[in-house]
Order: sequence, then structure tokens, then C-alpha cells
Amino acid sequence: MKPTTVRTIAELRQKIAAFRRSGADERVNGVGFVPTMGYLHEGHASLLRRSARENGLTVLSIFVNPIQFGPNEDLDKYPRDEEKDIALAASCGVDLVFLPTVQEMYPQKRVTTVTVAEVTEGLCGASRPGHFDGVATVVAKLLNIVQPDRAYFGLKDAQQVAVVTRMAQDLNIPTEVVPCPTVREPDGLALSSRNVYLSAEERKQALSLSHSLAKAPEWIAEGATARELSALLKREIGRYPLADIEYAEALSYPDLLPPDENTPLRSIDGLLLIALAVRFGSTRLIDNRLLNPKEAGVEPCFDK
Amino acid sequence: MKPTTVRTIAELRQKIAAFRRSGADERVNGVGFVPTMGYLHEGHASLLRRSARENGLTVLSIFVNPIQFGPNEDLDKYPRDEEKDIALAASCGVDLVFLPTVQEMYPQKRVTTVTVAEVTEGLCGASRPGHFDGVATVVAKLLNIVQPDRAYFGLKDAQQVAVVTRMAQDLNIPTEVVPCPTVREPDGLALSSRNVYLSAEERKQALSLSHSLAKAPEWIAEGATARELSALLKREIGRYPLADIEYAEALSYPDLLPPDENTPLRSIDGLLLIALAVRFGSTRLIDNRLLNPKEAGVEPCFDK
Repeated sequence: MKPTTVRTIAELRQKIAAFRRSGADERVNGVGFVPTMGYLHEGHASLLRRSARENGLTVLSIFVNPIQFGPNEDLDKYPRDEEKDIALAASCGVDLVFLPTVQEMYPQKRVTTVTVAEVTEGLCGASRPGHFDGVATVVAKLLNIVQPDRAYFGLKDAQQVAVVTRMAQDLNIPTEVVPCPTVREPDGLALSSRNVYLSAEERKQALSLSHSLAKAPEWIAEGATARELSALLKREIGRYPLADIEYAEALSYPDLLPPDENTPLRSIDGLLLIALAVRFGSTRLIDNRLLNPKEAGVEPCFDK
Repeated sequence: MKPTTVRTIAELRQKIAAFRRSGADERVNGVGFVPTMGYLHEGHASLLRRSARENGLTVLSIFVNPIQFGPNEDLDKYPRDEEKDIALAASCGVDLVFLPTVQEMYPQKRVTTVTVAEVTEGLCGASRPGHFDGVATVVAKLLNIVQPDRAYFGLKDAQQVAVVTRMAQDLNIPTEVVPCPTVREPDGLALSSRNVYLSAEERKQALSLSHSLAKAPEWIAEGATARELSALLKREIGRYPLADIEYAEALSYPDLLPPDENTPLRSIDGLLLIALAVRFGSTRLIDNRLLNPKEAGVEPCFDK
């Protein structure tokens, strides 16, 4: 069934309140929410399907949030296709598609910012100043607008998941943040709306991310420290001439702290995030693997 | 009737949800909330009574929020009297008193901060760095915990009202922020939990705040500019030897911007906040008047 499209906050709240009042939320488990910037792919579809499975009402938001883009980033050329997005949403069981304008989301000069320290300092936070302030602020706004029981985020943006999870905890936002596994092309490339920017040759070499990540468990099993793993990843990606490496790091998850320099990663407790950012021309791709280095021979988690 | 005291977030949410589920909220107009730091006086009582009049359920929180105190401020000696507070709450028709510990409100290292720019720059924000970040962050947390329809704040802390109002708008928090008039002693002193710190002689001279504010409408009617009004207020307060003036300013409300330097205040559109901060020994007092300089011969607003 085609979802209802809604362009104002007032109308969205009204429709969600009507659902809650109907009493259906207690029978069929509440409101699920998937915030996106649109140009949906199978990764988004997996979040939407899971929300539709786990909730009585699923809300998708499509909003290219200007305040999370830096001055030299791709805000203006960020790809959009509303019609195709709504068709995909329909096939995934979405009930409400929220498509606000920038004016609707930021009707007056914004003076309030939600800032998350520490987990935003490394990885993408280091090269994209202000990016995670923009993410945390818009997600806080959207969670206050939708007031969902559960919100679904893809682990391809693992740092974003860590930021949103911590923000929701610290601000007592009564929404469960649900991390969901990365969806990949058959050859291993992590799905991303930005993949459309890649030339044919760049697309081939973009496999350097998933291929090098696939080798990480072996290197960890052999006793690599964080620094050694980073060097091994960079050497592997460096074999692809178009790849321009921004970072290749192993950090604890969800705190995103660097592990002890001299300890082999295989003896570290808890989850480990192996994260990459690599540019191909003007296109910046990220990918990661979340591993439990101690249990079950470095098997990935969340991949179910 | 004695209110129910609740010390955990989970129990508070459970009790509010039970009220909402009962359907009473639609009949008798929802949930009202008065966040305080305790040591309640008649100013707080006026907020509580108004909330009880306008809502089916009234929640009072008492929490001395450490993150809004500076390193040299009075966090440790901030006055407390839980028993008396609960008795006053009972007499005002409060249903739930939320008394969380610091551990309950900040169970892990807090990395998230809600920052409000511009309206926090002048007045108390200038001399208390980080204070309004602490206020905005804890109020965001409390509003997410209670999810009230209306939250009541006293205009004695006019800048706080401006900060919270703007924060709620910018973050789409679905709570109406209700500003309420300052309550005064018969001789004019604005009620404050900090008044207990004053010696007998300081208490007398503390009237310099309300006395000088009472003269402001006359000075405005005579054509004073913002700078002239500030000088007149300072001269008046300066007649009290124990008074140590921190600021005496006229700003637009609720934006808290300085008016044009050369324009007589009586020709300015919109509301004007005349705000004072004065120290008596180690006790810092604030007071203000909110005026409409154009309408009805500079009559104060909200004073009903």
C-alpha cells in the first residue's frame, strides 16, 4: 500500500497521535522510525522492513539536512529522487513518509546545537568539523517530532550510530536506537547513496575497502596491534592506485577510544570497530567491520 | 493530598504513562511540569498552583543540577529542605514530586551538551560561563523524562525563560513553555532561594534592585536611551553602599539583543527587559522588569 506523504510537522504529529490514540500501539508494538537523507537503496530498505516487522506504524523521514554538511561538501549535488524513494517505501511497508522542507525544519535562525564530545573526535569527526553536531541536532529534532519507540540506523555509519545512541542516553530521549547490519553489493561494496558518483574504474577499485576489511580478522588472529592493523590495511588499500586513504583505524565500540598501543587486538575485551574512509576522486567512501576479537575467532556481530 | 514522591526515572515515567493511559489527560488537559532546585518559596508555589489549575497532573522536580554551577559557585552550600518542599507541594496540588539523585540523572560520563547561542551571551551568561549550557541540558533531559504538555518557569530568571523557550522551539520539544510573573515580598524584594544568605543589613539594601526597577518606566517615559537608563539604574543602586553591581541593562525580549544606542527606549517596538545583577557580600541577586515601552505608558506585562 502506498504510504501517506506528509510535509509539515503539525500534520505528522497529528497522524502519529491518531495512531497512538487508536490503541494499536500497545497491541502491535508502537512506532518505528527510519531517518534518512533519501536516494534510498537496499540498505535503507532493510531498515524499513525491519521497522515494519517490529512496529505497528513505520515512519520514514527524507531530509537532506544542510547543517551536517561542511562548506566544501556535496550538499548541493546530493542525489535526490523522491518518487523512487516513495515507491521503495511502499514496497517495504512504510506507513508515513515525512518530507519536510528546510524552512519547515529550520523556520527561524537556529541558535540551539546538540554537541556530543569524545565519540565524535576521531574517524569522520576529525575530518568533518561540525558534521556530528549537525547530525546530533537534527536527530534530536526528528526524535522529538516523531517520538518513536524505536529508531533504526545502519552500521555502515558506525560512528553516527555511536553518536546517536550516546545522545539519546545522555538526553533521556525515550527511543531505543537500533543498530542494523550494513547491506552490501554481491561483490562486497557497502551500499551508499554516494556510490552513484563513482566512475566505472573507481567502482572497481572501491572494492579495496571491503576486501581489506575482510582480511582484518586474519591479521588480528595473527596478533596485530592497532597500529600494525592500521598499517596492514593501508598497505592493502594502497595497492589500488585511485584510492586516497583518509583513515584506517581500530577503535573500541561504542566508546570509539584507541586501544592500548602495545596490546595485540586479539586480547582486547569488548567490541572492536575497524573503520575506513577512502576517497576516489571527489567521492568519499566509508566502510567498517564490527568484530568481537575474543569470542568465536573474531566473528562479526550484528550480521544477522 | 500528599503528593507521591518518586526517585527514579523509570518509576516517574511509569506513573505518568498510567495517567496518560487513563484517558484523563484529554478530559482535564494534560501534564504540567515545574522543574526546580528545591528550597521552594512562594514564587515556586505560584507556578505549582497555576500548573495544578491548568493540568490534570502536576509534576514537580527538585534537583540541584551540578552542571549549571561554576567551579566557584554555591553548589555545595545551596540550601535544601526536602520535607518542607514536599509539604508546600502538597498544599499547591502537586501530584508527583520527582527527587532524583545526581547518579540517577548522570549515570555515566556525560558527553552530550545542549548549547544555546546568542540569548545566552549577555546578562548572566557573560559572568557565568557554561551556566546556560547546564540549564539547557538538564531542562532538555527533564522535558524528555516528563514529556509534559506545559512547563512553568518564573520570569525572575527571564534569561533562563528565553533560553528554555528558544531551546524547546529549536529542538521541536512538544512542550509549551509558560512564563510566569515574579513573586515579591510585600516590600518589593523578588523571592529567591538565595535570599536566606543575606544579613539583616544586606536584606534592607537588597531593596535597591526593586526600587531602581520601579523607577525605570519614568526614566523611559522621559526619553532615556538604553545607555542612559543603565547609568541611571547604576547611580540609583550605587546609593546603597553594600551593593556591588554586576550589570544593569535594557535588552529586547525574548531575543536579548541591545537596542539601538541612540534611540529613546520609549520609541522601541516590542518588549523590553530591564535586568539587574547585584552582589551583596558573597550573595548574588538578580531581578528584572519586562515592559512594553510603547503601549499603555510603559506598563509591565505578564504581571497578572
